[in-house]
Amino acid sequence: MDVYEAIKKRRDIRSSFKKEPIPDEVLSKILLAAHLAPSVGYSQPWNFILIYSEDTRRRILEEVMRQREVFKNKLEGERKELFSNIKIEGILDTPLNIAITCDPSRFGPNVLGRHTMPETCEFSTVLGIENMWLAARSEGIGIGWVSFMDKETIKRILGIPENVKLIAYLCIGYVTSFPEKPELEEKGWGNRLRLSDLVYVDKWGEGVKEDLRKSLDNVKI
Amino acid sequence: MDVYEAIKKRRDIRSSFKKEPIPDEVLSKILLAAHLAPSVGYSQPWNFILIYSEDTRRRILEEVMRQREVFKNKLEGERKELFSNIKIEGILDTPLNIAITCDPSRFGPNVLGRHTMPETCEFSTVLGIENMWLAARSEGIGIGWVSFMDKETIKRILGIPENVKLIAYLCIGYVTSFPEKPELEEKGWGNRLRLSDLVYVDKWGEGVKEDLRKSLDNVKI
Repeated sequence: MDVYEAIKKRRDIRSSFKKEPIPDEVLSKILLAAHLAPSVGYSQPWNFILIYSEDTRRRILEEVMRQREVFKNKLEGERKELFSNIKIEGILDTPLNIAITCDPSRFGPNVLGRHTMPETCEFSTVLGIENMWLAARSEGIGIGWVSFMDKETIKRILGIPENVKLIAYLCIGYVTSFPEKPELEEKGWGNRLRLSDLVYVDKWGEGVKEDLRKSLDNVKI
Repeated sequence: MDVYEAIKKRRDIRSSFKKEPIPDEVLSKILLAAHLAPSVGYSQPWNFILIYSEDTRRRILEEVMRQREVFKNKLEGERKELFSNIKIEGILDTPLNIAITCDPSRFGPNVLGRHTMPETCEFSTVLGIENMWLAARSEGIGIGWVSFMDKETIKRILGIPENVKLIAYLCIGYVTSFPEKPELEEKGWGNRLRLSDLVYVDKWGEGVKEDLRKSLDNVKI
């Protein structure tokens, strides 16, 4: 699949998962895509925990449901109602969940480029996650990132060492279809911002000139 | 370009930039690729500051050079010598630098999925950066992420508001060539880890079975 097509058609999937297993070779390609991401000072700080166990996933789902309630109780009126129709995870609907971690101690303290921006260690892992997401899309596989969870609770369930950071918890599987638009847009939760409003020139707040503005708002990929 | 090819051939570029300008349409495609990234609760927290001004770039370069010295002084012996041959930025060698920020206040406090993991706001921006990087690669354009900088100094130079976070500073331009291997591997600074050593099953530390191990270490994309 063309890189622009994968970027355009990638979705955060919650509702359309199938239980069909992912063959080892396809899974390997998706994980290799992550492993080929850039990393600060070539530190490759990531690990991937493949969670097949239903028992483990049920324990994680309990935590997610608890956090869903916490969030719901912060909302009011229409937003609360909208939220009750939004599915936030596919933990048991998928053949596989993947927890992705970042080990800030890998390769010792002098990782090139990290002393000024230690968060680039975590960011490296996130760059790898986008590679996975696009690779999966090109294989007809959907990914949903679940963030309704207390990380320390999940780390305990998965036995992740204290100094290692949990970066993402993904549900992954083949799908019946990829929605045309992001689910949160379809459900009326939010809209795509206008790109040209997000671009400045030379300093914060300086809008782009007319030519570039037109190009930004009309370009197709 | 095929998505796997873009992932495989993407490089963090320091040395092979050309000054040739990037046409508005191509730049727009790359920025749109970033804007189509997933974001927590559809919050789209990113802004892009296009830095054409040579004067601004010179001021930023001064800060980077200062931080390069700080890092160099932490190294000893062979590592110090290796480092002196490694170029860390293309700030003035490129037609354009792009600073990318994250605004955690966008769409107010109740962004869906962010209460448990506030860092997913920054992570969303990083997912967009990988989209840019791959889109640029498919256009024959290289990107180098510069992290040798004190973020507050750069924020002051660019007038970025206090509550907005600087996530990345990128040098972007056409290149004479994309290196076969990552520059830090070519220069002997580090090596690619074995993928199968980074993958666990169901809990931290549980290695993968033989079949998957073979697949992980032999798969090609």
